Amino acid sequence: MKQKKFILPESEMPDKWYNIQADMVNKPLPILNPKTREPLKAEDLFPIFCEECSRQEMNQTDAWIEIPEAVREKYANYRCTPLVRAYGLEETLDTPAHIYFKNESVSPVGSHKLNSALAQAYYCKQQGITNITTETGAGQWGAALSYASKVFGLDCAVYQVKISYEQKPYRRSIMQVFGAQVTPSPSMSTRAGKDILTVQPNHQGSLGTAISEAIELAMTTPNCRYTLGSVLNHVSLHQTIIGLEAEKQMEMAGEYPDTIIACFGGGSNFSGIAYPFMRHTIKEGKKIQFIAAEPASCPKLTKGKFTYDFGDEAGYTPLLPMFTLGHKFQPANIHAGGLRYHGAGTIVSQLMKDGYMEAVDIEQLDSFKAGTLFAKAEGIIPAPESCHAIAATINEALKCKETGEKKVILFNLSGHGLIDMSAYDQYLAGGLQNYSVQTSEIEKNLEGV
Amino acid sequence: MKQKKFILPESEMPDKWYNIQADMVNKPLPILNPKTREPLKAEDLFPIFCEECSRQEMNQTDAWIEIPEAVREKYANYRCTPLVRAYGLEETLDTPAHIYFKNESVSPVGSHKLNSALAQAYYCKQQGITNITTETGAGQWGAALSYASKVFGLDCAVYQVKISYEQKPYRRSIMQVFGAQVTPSPSMSTRAGKDILTVQPNHQGSLGTAISEAIELAMTTPNCRYTLGSVLNHVSLHQTIIGLEAEKQMEMAGEYPDTIIACFGGGSNFSGIAYPFMRHTIKEGKKIQFIAAEPASCPKLTKGKFTYDFGDEAGYTPLLPMFTLGHKFQPANIHAGGLRYHGAGTIVSQLMKDGYMEAVDIEQLDSFKAGTLFAKAEGIIPAPESCHAIAATINEALKCKETGEKKVILFNLSGHGLIDMSAYDQYLAGGLQNYSVQTSEIEKNLEGV
Repeated sequence: MKQKKFILPESEMPDKWYNIQADMVNKPLPILNPKTREPLKAEDLFPIFCEECSRQEMNQTDAWIEIPEAVREKYANYRCTPLVRAYGLEETLDTPAHIYFKNESVSPVGSHKLNSALAQAYYCKQQGITNITTETGAGQWGAALSYASKVFGLDCAVYQVKISYEQKPYRRSIMQVFGAQVTPSPSMSTRAGKDILTVQPNHQGSLGTAISEAIELAMTTPNCRYTLGSVLNHVSLHQTIIGLEAEKQMEMAGEYPDTIIACFGGGSNFSGIAYPFMRHTIKEGKKIQFIAAEPASCPKLTKGKFTYDFGDEAGYTPLLPMFTLGHKFQPANIHAGGLRYHGAGTIVSQLMKDGYMEAVDIEQLDSFKAGTLFAKAEGIIPAPESCHAIAATINEALKCKETGEKKVILFNLSGHGLIDMSAYDQYLAGGLQNYSVQTSEIEKNLEGV
Repeated sequence: MKQKKFILPESEMPDKWYNIQADMVNKPLPILNPKTREPLKAEDLFPIFCEECSRQEMNQTDAWIEIPEAVREKYANYRCTPLVRAYGLEETLDTPAHIYFKNESVSPVGSHKLNSALAQAYYCKQQGITNITTETGAGQWGAALSYASKVFGLDCAVYQVKISYEQKPYRRSIMQVFGAQVTPSPSMSTRAGKDILTVQPNHQGSLGTAISEAIELAMTTPNCRYTLGSVLNHVSLHQTIIGLEAEKQMEMAGEYPDTIIACFGGGSNFSGIAYPFMRHTIKEGKKIQFIAAEPASCPKLTKGKFTYDFGDEAGYTPLLPMFTLGHKFQPANIHAGGLRYHGAGTIVSQLMKDGYMEAVDIEQLDSFKAGTLFAKAEGIIPAPESCHAIAATINEALKCKETGEKKVILFNLSGHGLIDMSAYDQYLAGGLQNYSVQTSEIEKNLEGV
């Protein structure tokens, strides 16, 4: 019988996260105070983030950071997640490639986001914080943080991007079942939201607007901190549990990936699966192809500019050195809400610049075509975000079919799409479309950035 | 670190199902031809079910039935499912009881139903069948069969109970993504459906109506067979993989259950977790408490009558010896669609009659209260059906709190509720109600049965 699924025994579970910053040849450029343009120190972030996350954000020296026991205990509820050999997909594509995926969709909240939510909630609790805020797009991160808050006894307020709030009412319900307060963004509950709605009453929201509102709430609420589900270095750090497990699981399978693929919004699931493998590229020159699959409607890595920009629409964040489409960029209403973000994290931006990885753009219709094919082949309905990774994987596997190459491809299935069935409905009914971004639009948004 | 999750290594996976019929002291009464009232033989079922399932249905001699390798390969995609120690729930309830649950929600389609769907689709394929039909309530079984059909290359047509078709549009979408044809029942596509709609144009459907339609389609379509997701002996047989795994996993945890609980519709998930443990009660007199948790609005085990009755509304099936509310019983529109069935399987009915198990009735509001509490404590949003098992578990755990007894309670989490968030929404908004059944209504339905 062919072995299809690989799971680590508890004794083999990683007890440290991997901090790629320590090993990078060119460190990420510093993040800057937008007024003085001076590099920030960890302490400068303390009013926004909890102290430990702020320190992790700036840590460029320690390659390994211990996972607190309380977090490992919570990880054990759903980790190790399965590494799966996608025999069904290989057969459907008739490819000589060996395709594996890391199945993060088995997390109780349905995606990889819980890996960082638990860590951030834990560190906040340790510091005596009582309230946390965040933004969410499709709601994967918001659902994860809502549950993590409940686990560690914190109150949680989530700003959800308005278009996703309306497209995906079930994710809002999930957050509410976990006891979180959910507000569609832009809202009238913050100055940032009011300012946006005054100029554009029908603004559909973006991660940029929701971040502004959540930060404002954190800054104006006693004993409250903000948390973010992607982009930042400490989030990527927590997500490396994915790749660290996968590395050992690939060993169980007796193979090593030639190509590693993940969808790309701000970088959390990409970093999570890629960095632990990339350390061998950086340190030992191991040749591995890393592909970030972004939506064609929000192509920061392939069509954006590497520059300093704000992380949010209102300009509340420090200036981040990153590939960006401009912080005022308003992404089209694609269903992959988690990928509707204008910028890439500082680490991943530097790695992209230094040629360690590449990026591809996937059209919305191609993403759903790939997701539907995957569902039929493997039985799992993928999140619209994850469909982008699957589309890129299929493209690579079909190249192998042409060349006869037996590449080993590993992709990250970041989450399931059970809450996104209305998107699949629309796709099956022919009601979805592609969105192309005009270069002129990107240039306009980048003016003055 | 406390171990929370127990998973069998692949080498320990069961390769046989357990057939409790072989060990039962009082065998289930025979099923009868409704016209002649003669007991049926396996061959009599061949026009409806595939041959191997028909033989398994009648097998009262072999205690162990080999799981075909092709089915075990597909099981390996998601099994062994985790056995989880519910520390979070124990803490919330402040109970000395040890609570474990078997997490069948991690199956790609979200419930235990896949265990039998894969087996039935496989056997149909082996026999050269090309088309299969079925009924579904909430859609858990329909989704499972749709995917299993895709796996083994069969065409699949599903009749979904109308009220569930409308309440849970996402499950319909899931079936459609897997390529199945889905029709709300009662429909005008069959004689049975037309007859029902002629008398009651607003009939909301029940599993009984949908079964009639699916059987009729199977009987009138070339090379087509009917499949059922619960009630029948061969379905219970396939589901014993749950309990067989759980038994070994409890051993890993170093404990043995005093009480085993599952929700109860037709009996598939109850049988699955209970029978492998019950064999020790039957054969060695081991004392274990088995509790079936049924909805108060469809209380066949506690308020029904043990008698011969049809399995479907139109009376197409053979006569089954079972606890029943009468095959014309129309259950209230509770969200736990999978529990809206008038009868119990023949094996479970005999076991109930012989005192091996007990049953409790759970009100809809209590079920959602329990499910919400569980979600906050364990991070998993349970299916409305599974909420009934959780409510019964909480009741038992609170009794332990009173008495100080450190009972070990094991329940089956048959599925997740991510497709049922609208039900949770309504619950949180105070929009759900209880439904009580009048004894006179049951008596009326049982007249002439």
